[in-house]
Amino acid sequence: MAENRGVAYAGPGRVEVVDIDYPEFVLKDGPGVHPANVGRQVHHGVILKVVASNICGSDQHMVRGRTTAPEGLVLGHEITGEVVEKGRDVEFLDIGDLVSVPFNIACGRCANCKARRTGICLNVNPDRPGSAYGYVDMGGWVGGQARYVLVPYADFNALRFPDKQQAMEKMLDLTMLSDIFPTGFHGCVTAGVGVGSTVYIAGAGPVGLAAAASAQLLGAAVVIVADMIGERLQQARAFGCETVDVSAEDPRAGIERILGESEVDAGVDAVGFEARGHGEAAAEEAPAAVLNTMMDVTAAGGSVGIPGLYVTGDPGAADEAAREGSLSVRIGLGWAKSHAFFTGQCPVMLYHRQLMKAILHDRVQIADAVNATPIGLEEAARGYREFDRGAARKYVLDPHGLLGTA
Amino acid sequence: MAENRGVAYAGPGRVEVVDIDYPEFVLKDGPGVHPANVGRQVHHGVILKVVASNICGSDQHMVRGRTTAPEGLVLGHEITGEVVEKGRDVEFLDIGDLVSVPFNIACGRCANCKARRTGICLNVNPDRPGSAYGYVDMGGWVGGQARYVLVPYADFNALRFPDKQQAMEKMLDLTMLSDIFPTGFHGCVTAGVGVGSTVYIAGAGPVGLAAAASAQLLGAAVVIVADMIGERLQQARAFGCETVDVSAEDPRAGIERILGESEVDAGVDAVGFEARGHGEAAAEEAPAAVLNTMMDVTAAGGSVGIPGLYVTGDPGAADEAAREGSLSVRIGLGWAKSHAFFTGQCPVMLYHRQLMKAILHDRVQIADAVNATPIGLEEAARGYREFDRGAARKYVLDPHGLLGTA
Amino acid sequence: MAENRGVAYAGPGRVEVVDIDYPEFVLKDGPGVHPANVGRQVHHGVILKVVASNICGSDQHMVRGRTTAPEGLVLGHEITGEVVEKGRDVEFLDIGDLVSVPFNIACGRCANCKARRTGICLNVNPDRPGSAYGYVDMGGWVGGQARYVLVPYADFNALRFPDKQQAMEKMLDLTMLSDIFPTGFHGCVTAGVGVGSTVYIAGAGPVGLAAAASAQLLGAAVVIVADMIGERLQQARAFGCETVDVSAEDPRAGIERILGESEVDAGVDAVGFEARGHGEAAAEEAPAAVLNTMMDVTAAGGSVGIPGLYVTGDPGAADEAAREGSLSVRIGLGWAKSHAFFTGQCPVMLYHRQLMKAILHDRVQIADAVNATPIGLEEAARGYREFDRGAARKYVLDPHGLLGTA
Amino acid sequence: MAENRGVAYAGPGRVEVVDIDYPEFVLKDGPGVHPANVGRQVHHGVILKVVASNICGSDQHMVRGRTTAPEGLVLGHEITGEVVEKGRDVEFLDIGDLVSVPFNIACGRCANCKARRTGICLNVNPDRPGSAYGYVDMGGWVGGQARYVLVPYADFNALRFPDKQQAMEKMLDLTMLSDIFPTGFHGCVTAGVGVGSTVYIAGAGPVGLAAAASAQLLGAAVVIVADMIGERLQQARAFGCETVDVSAEDPRAGIERILGESEVDAGVDAVGFEARGHGEAAAEEAPAAVLNTMMDVTAAGGSVGIPGLYVTGDPGAADEAAREGSLSVRIGLGWAKSHAFFTGQCPVMLYHRQLMKAILHDRVQIADAVNATPIGLEEAARGYREFDRGAARKYVLDPHGLLGTA
Repeated sequence: MAENRGVAYAGPGRVEVVDIDYPEFVLKDGPGVHPANVGRQVHHGVILKVVASNICGSDQHMVRGRTTAPEGLVLGHEITGEVVEKGRDVEFLDIGDLVSVPFNIACGRCANCKARRTGICLNVNPDRPGSAYGYVDMGGWVGGQARYVLVPYADFNALRFPDKQQAMEKMLDLTMLSDIFPTGFHGCVTAGVGVGSTVYIAGAGPVGLAAAASAQLLGAAVVIVADMIGERLQQARAFGCETVDVSAEDPRAGIERILGESEVDAGVDAVGFEARGHGEAAAEEAPAAVLNTMMDVTAAGGSVGIPGLYVTGDPGAADEAAREGSLSVRIGLGWAKSHAFFTGQCPVMLYHRQLMKAILHDRVQIADAVNATPIGLEEAARGYREFDRGAARKYVLDPHGLLGTA
Repeated sequence: MAENRGVAYAGPGRVEVVDIDYPEFVLKDGPGVHPANVGRQVHHGVILKVVASNICGSDQHMVRGRTTAPEGLVLGHEITGEVVEKGRDVEFLDIGDLVSVPFNIACGRCANCKARRTGICLNVNPDRPGSAYGYVDMGGWVGGQARYVLVPYADFNALRFPDKQQAMEKMLDLTMLSDIFPTGFHGCVTAGVGVGSTVYIAGAGPVGLAAAASAQLLGAAVVIVADMIGERLQQARAFGCETVDVSAEDPRAGIERILGESEVDAGVDAVGFEARGHGEAAAEEAPAAVLNTMMDVTAAGGSVGIPGLYVTGDPGAADEAAREGSLSVRIGLGWAKSHAFFTGQCPVMLYHRQLMKAILHDRVQIADAVNATPIGLEEAARGYREFDRGAARKYVLDPHGLLGTA
Repeated sequence: MAENRGVAYAGPGRVEVVDIDYPEFVLKDGPGVHPANVGRQVHHGVILKVVASNICGSDQHMVRGRTTAPEGLVLGHEITGEVVEKGRDVEFLDIGDLVSVPFNIACGRCANCKARRTGICLNVNPDRPGSAYGYVDMGGWVGGQARYVLVPYADFNALRFPDKQQAMEKMLDLTMLSDIFPTGFHGCVTAGVGVGSTVYIAGAGPVGLAAAASAQLLGAAVVIVADMIGERLQQARAFGCETVDVSAEDPRAGIERILGESEVDAGVDAVGFEARGHGEAAAEEAPAAVLNTMMDVTAAGGSVGIPGLYVTGDPGAADEAAREGSLSVRIGLGWAKSHAFFTGQCPVMLYHRQLMKAILHDRVQIADAVNATPIGLEEAARGYREFDRGAARKYVLDPHGLLGTA
Repeated sequence: MAENRGVAYAGPGRVEVVDIDYPEFVLKDGPGVHPANVGRQVHHGVILKVVASNICGSDQHMVRGRTTAPEGLVLGHEITGEVVEKGRDVEFLDIGDLVSVPFNIACGRCANCKARRTGICLNVNPDRPGSAYGYVDMGGWVGGQARYVLVPYADFNALRFPDKQQAMEKMLDLTMLSDIFPTGFHGCVTAGVGVGSTVYIAGAGPVGLAAAASAQLLGAAVVIVADMIGERLQQARAFGCETVDVSAEDPRAGIERILGESEVDAGVDAVGFEARGHGEAAAEEAPAAVLNTMMDVTAAGGSVGIPGLYVTGDPGAADEAAREGSLSVRIGLGWAKSHAFFTGQCPVMLYHRQLMKAILHDRVQIADAVNATPIGLEEAARGYREFDRGAARKYVLDPHGLLGTA
């Protein structure tokens, strides 16, 4: 049995790489594991040697201390790896297969999974529908920013790459299939982005940039990305997006400058509840700011995709309502414009196979779009820190040195 | 030229039946007519002898004085009538045709109309997309609670009944095609109601009851209607709905009592911004109460249809945010449950033909469901008053005594 | 271990009830079992005590000797039963659960199953996508017209009834969930049947009648059923359908008589390749007759749902092209009318849960519609015979006398 | 009033450019004009100075003498032009506007047009739903391969380009909006082409090439185009398609060579009834050959888009069935694979606005893909001749020398 190492939450603002148990086909007790999940048999699982595991913006919510995540929680829900062991009930995967793992853990057997709603599986999280690896209040499945990780219901969850060598060559692209590429794509699909659309994407972090690349792949005519960080806006322009710096320009004015009209066909909120005000208010947190901007800039009849996270409880929020997840939303404006709003975790499995094919046939350069940057597993703390400071990079942990960081 | 009479807004809490101009094929100046629409040629219009014109809950917003509607505005956007004159550009309607008119005025020629988004037509309201007869800030098209009314773009807007005599016999059903039947149906369709669904409908006013009848027509397994007015709940039970009296019972508890589980597949908000709190808070206006209940009672993965009106400005609201149409919404809860939300005016034309066929072939008894009650045009003030007090009735004005009120 | 009995094909025109092996969690060799499936481990399976198992029109194709089915093949793909044993990999079913089993066997783990295309599962039939119990060239899964049957991938395939006693009371309705109710419903859904539709359904056998009941449940305005057998047409009229006797009346003429116009919104072919000519040609087999009628009677822009079976090889066909499954189709007419055509096995899982809810809440009386008729397992031969002669009945085998036949 | 010239059918194999009437706002008698349309008032029309009008493969059917088109019929249904006169009832177009005209003439007022089914408008062709300019049995609307043409229901039909100068610069792209670009796109959309799809397109004529460009725009992973003409296959490769020469290679073998598996996700038949056999049979007409290939090469669960024309009557067909539009179709194979089939005229209006935006923002190079080749109006006969011989060109007539041919 190999030794295992993983990235653990170590209190507000801190992560550490620590020794952790090598996985077995059972969910053992540990930080953040739901009591009802302790001892759960996982004969349907595989153990992966992790090839790539990315740091995600939603990991940052925990690390910033804005959740109830316990210290010691092993992080990481963006997992790609090689099957090194398989449970007795795994039928369609083999040792040596290289697979992408959706961040949403799904049983493949409940009513929601059967309806392709794998983001709200009913059988993996005792608290509520939906789960993820290495995440607070998600059942306690151990995270994959590690050398080895257990993937349950593997026949259902894992997406096998057809050609292992080809996949290794495109690993920095393929690693985005576990979360942000489908998540950005889902934001665009639910926003109604299609051939010829004009799109406004709030946020040039990795999800926003993935949404922008997705919009292009879907045939959008013009993709406008908004943020306050110059480096991130520059990254968006690097692959053909238009940009609005909302610290300096009103979103409608920016759209008018670019399109000659002040509204777009479709809006994507890739920011979520940690939004800040626009313009002079940019320094202050304003959790509904982006949502309200969406209604302002999306044309009547348009839809708003909301991959950005909104939470049910935010202990660090500025006011009491926000602490309970209630925000002051201009719903009257949305209603007057017949908007539709789509929220929630992206059901990755709905998209990952087709996006994989787009990557393998060179139809999209997602690693370039999000500026994928591999770093060693032991350097994870630096990755978290730089990402938190707004680096225009998507950090990809490389636990076994297979991505060239060793 | 016949004399004309119509129901006019006469200040907060009051309507009057007054002499008004007989329509011509031009939009003349008058109370509420947008300057840019004054003098607009309407050769594409027909003049209808109004057979039925219903009082709508959204008329009440104006009559209660919660809008900027000017005195003298002629009300009425739920119109059914007989063609008595046609403009020179009308090609497919004939004198004598009996037609239903969607409340949303639509040109049939703009990008939105071509995309079936007739609720946000770009060419009929100089202020913004979307229009309606007899409504504040909707361009100034004269209302149809009158003996005669002008219907523009008639070839596009009017739905001709195939058999005039049959239609007269079913007029109390067919008159609901102009607004509340499609509106309730749209609420259900956008909420994802289908065969076997469980549905929670907030509000047992006419739109809520129409939504309930629609849900049954769509094959819903269980339709639960919630309100605080006993008479309205009784009306819902009269055609097979389950009910929750939210002045006395928590919505989730009521659903649990009925279904054995506390959530439904689909939620419809047929109340809108004039919502009140539940339980002990029932006396106070709480504009986001219903919206937040929807997130509470709708299962993860479900959708919420919102035919209930939310406004961009509400001068009579209790707090400043609400006066601008901003409400405190539990968006975090919705996000955690992957909800989708659908707002806006129902594009009546998307549904009215199929619903007409369902009526004509006796597949639905919508008049019974909403308790259609014909009264004379001159009695309109009484109708408004009783409706405002919560009567479980849908008042149908009968300007020419063709519905038996004379 | 209990003794087992099952209905076996015994040569053209004959079935016999014979002793068969009690199932184990392995697929053993036997008549019709694909060599590649022999010895397949089925730890994911359950063994059901069969409560109800229906005779299907597609069984008749085999019994009539129009396929290559080997003698001894145990028939039956419409299975409802009680879990009496479960494999080690079954996690969400318990002994004693009462379940409905979709006729399409599906692994729940391949690309098609994940996309809800359970009718073309890639992992259960070595020959081609898609499988079924007790059917020729479908991999060799033993049929369920028996006392006990093995159901593989049971967590995925089985639909548990929430209340066992209630389910037993409605068993004659619920048994239709395994095939014909979803199949008829699928025909209607793909044909675009919705609220207010006019529908023409060719064939008043069980699938046609199930389609008719489905159309009503979907809100169709008028449901017209066509057949040549008076007793079956009478059955259709018994629950409110209009009928056309195509042995005596041209389909368009019949529609004109009923609707006042000669075309319908939606067409459903519930006959398939064993079609006969209309009118005077009614005595002769004319395999494309129904398909071509569909194009004739469906209005331009309509769709045609084709739940009726068309085969790739028909050794008993009248001409060489038909023996290879090639039929003379009026595709030019369909093209001129912009028709769409939907073929294939119904993916039962797409619908069975919602249809179950419609049954349990008394929204549909499917057993009455198809005239469900329970008979003892040992009487199966009589059931096949009477059904083949055109009885307007759906025979439900009752292997344990739980349906009152004992 | 300007003089007018147009391309007229002059008997099998011949077209001539002749003097024709300058249009008025009435449909006058002439070759091919339906008696019921003679004298029809067209105050809703505009007269266009034709800027570009393309020769279409479906024109060839007439010119080859395989229809009942009368001599003298003025051809041309792919029209782009400048408004030079407008009828009294035109409200939203101005003199000088540059517009694209969908080839399907649509009233914008019937049930089909309101449902976006403009390819089967009920009000423009007395014979049956659907119409087109300059086409046999389509009502008699005069074709647009001319200097001037009348466009009825212009507010509804015409798509105005937002910037005239920009539009003139991209005219060789924009002229494809009137037919083949939307038609090819529709073929792909109905075939289910999306991000990551593998697609097989039969036919490398202009519609096939437009379908190929559309598939790329929709994000397809691999686009395979099949034909028998080397020059056309070369054209397909010029913009990144894979190709199969079906005169030399079996389609499944070609797909296997390219993809490593012998089936694709989606199939598009861009050939239609004038198909020829594959391989050694390539010399003979085999009208169902392509349709049957589609079922062979499209994976189970896939859809087949059929923009290629199939006709109700083909006087020149090889056998009696084909003369009535009946073809020998392997429907059994399609059924076994759960295929869906989509036929009919493309409703251009469903797509042209979004495709225009894609062109104007440089997201697609459709003129290059189809090798748009402007020629003078007076050279039309040469264009027809070369196109008939299989030139890999899309000929664009330039009646006023605005495209540089003068």
